[in-house]
Amino acid sequence: LNVAETLDTQLNVFADFRPSIPEDLRDAEYVFLANIDPDLQIALLQQCRAPRLTVLDSMNYWITSKRDSLARAISMVDVVLFNEAETKLFAAKSNILVAAKQILGMGPKALVIKRGEYGSILVTRGDGAAWALGECFFLTPAYPLERVIDPTGAGDTFAAGFMGYLARSDDLSIEALRRAVVHGTVVASFTVEDFSIDRLRTLTTRDIDERYQEFLKLTYFETLPGSDCECFRRPIS
Amino acid sequence: LNVAETLDTQLNVFADFRPSIPEDLRDAEYVFLANIDPDLQIALLQQCRAPRLTVLDSMNYWITSKRDSLARAISMVDVVLFNEAETKLFAAKSNILVAAKQILGMGPKALVIKRGEYGSILVTRGDGAAWALGECFFLTPAYPLERVIDPTGAGDTFAAGFMGYLARSDDLSIEALRRAVVHGTVVASFTVEDFSIDRLRTLTTRDIDERYQEFLKLTYFETLPGSDCECFRRPIS
Repeated sequence: LNVAETLDTQLNVFADFRPSIPEDLRDAEYVFLANIDPDLQIALLQQCRAPRLTVLDSMNYWITSKRDSLARAISMVDVVLFNEAETKLFAAKSNILVAAKQILGMGPKALVIKRGEYGSILVTRGDGAAWALGECFFLTPAYPLERVIDPTGAGDTFAAGFMGYLARSDDLSIEALRRAVVHGTVVASFTVEDFSIDRLRTLTTRDIDERYQEFLKLTYFETLPGSDCECFRRPIS
Repeated sequence: LNVAETLDTQLNVFADFRPSIPEDLRDAEYVFLANIDPDLQIALLQQCRAPRLTVLDSMNYWITSKRDSLARAISMVDVVLFNEAETKLFAAKSNILVAAKQILGMGPKALVIKRGEYGSILVTRGDGAAWALGECFFLTPAYPLERVIDPTGAGDTFAAGFMGYLARSDDLSIEALRRAVVHGTVVASFTVEDFSIDRLRTLTTRDIDERYQEFLKLTYFETLPGSDCECFRRPIS
């Protein structure tokens, strides 16, 4: 489920869409440019007065058909969301780290690379010329599920969890971005448990927080959460 | 690099190999049964007097040609090492968690699933009938590399790092197994940086420890290592 194959793209109503942001929404502090024609993303961005954080999503269709516009849009936002194949395609590099560095060289402050069932990578720019691996890169697996019903919408809800966490915490540090990636991971994991938005209809903040805490236990290997409860200290049996 | 395709398997000298363990090695406490005919693995295991930990590696060839023998060998060891495709093939399940649970139901105490550039999963049996996800499963990414020269030997050195850590710490808790998986990850990451064992020739314990510490920084999102140094607290720029 980590490779998406596009059979056909029909723009439909988006082909002639010229969106205008209502006056009272132009002061939005957290702006997410969902996957659409990059020229429209730029036009929308220009209608926002002083966003605190701008995030852009895109896809293979725009990378191949409107590369220059997409490059311009990318240079204007803070964070870019790509899946693994899009990252390599856009940068024309086979190594994901090399591709990521190249994209960050085009202007954005951070790149989030979604790898489907294999998790995601957050890349932020080094301090000056240096790229300390442990500081500029964050790698995290996906939340493991025994039953995946439908991956449709996983990327969109990942973005929503990511944006929602940052908007709520109002913190744009590297540390906060890491937690935002894990929140995106957790929210997306609920999405794929059912068709459409069915699982999200009943989702509570508590569900998200609980799975976030479980995610800590799933991924830590030093100073384990709950290590005082002996569950990690018992010998394998 | 996370999918291996086998074009041909030639057993060569292993076809008629009947190994005998020298008397002074039969008291080995940590026994690793490298990938070979599962009947030989069983014969070797039976020559060991009282191992504290037994770990088995195998491959697609034995899964398809000697499934029953392999199942018997697996039932006799503590830990099984499989890659992702082998796990699904052996269990005949498409979901990795479901496949893992089925394999653990056959006897071993733990299963390590190697996912190449996407990292690995450690699965341990639940306490009784319960399978608390955050306690029985550990997911970790691979160490990111900008330049991979040759993946040959990555699996073998992963096993070596894993076994070496456990033998040195003499701790078989779930927590120690998690750290052993990260040690395996780190050692394997050096292997693929050059051909053959070239990178390993000059590898020091300090190199491994440093990369292990860096791995913590690469994967943590709460109580970050080095978060007192401000590097994670600065806003993205």
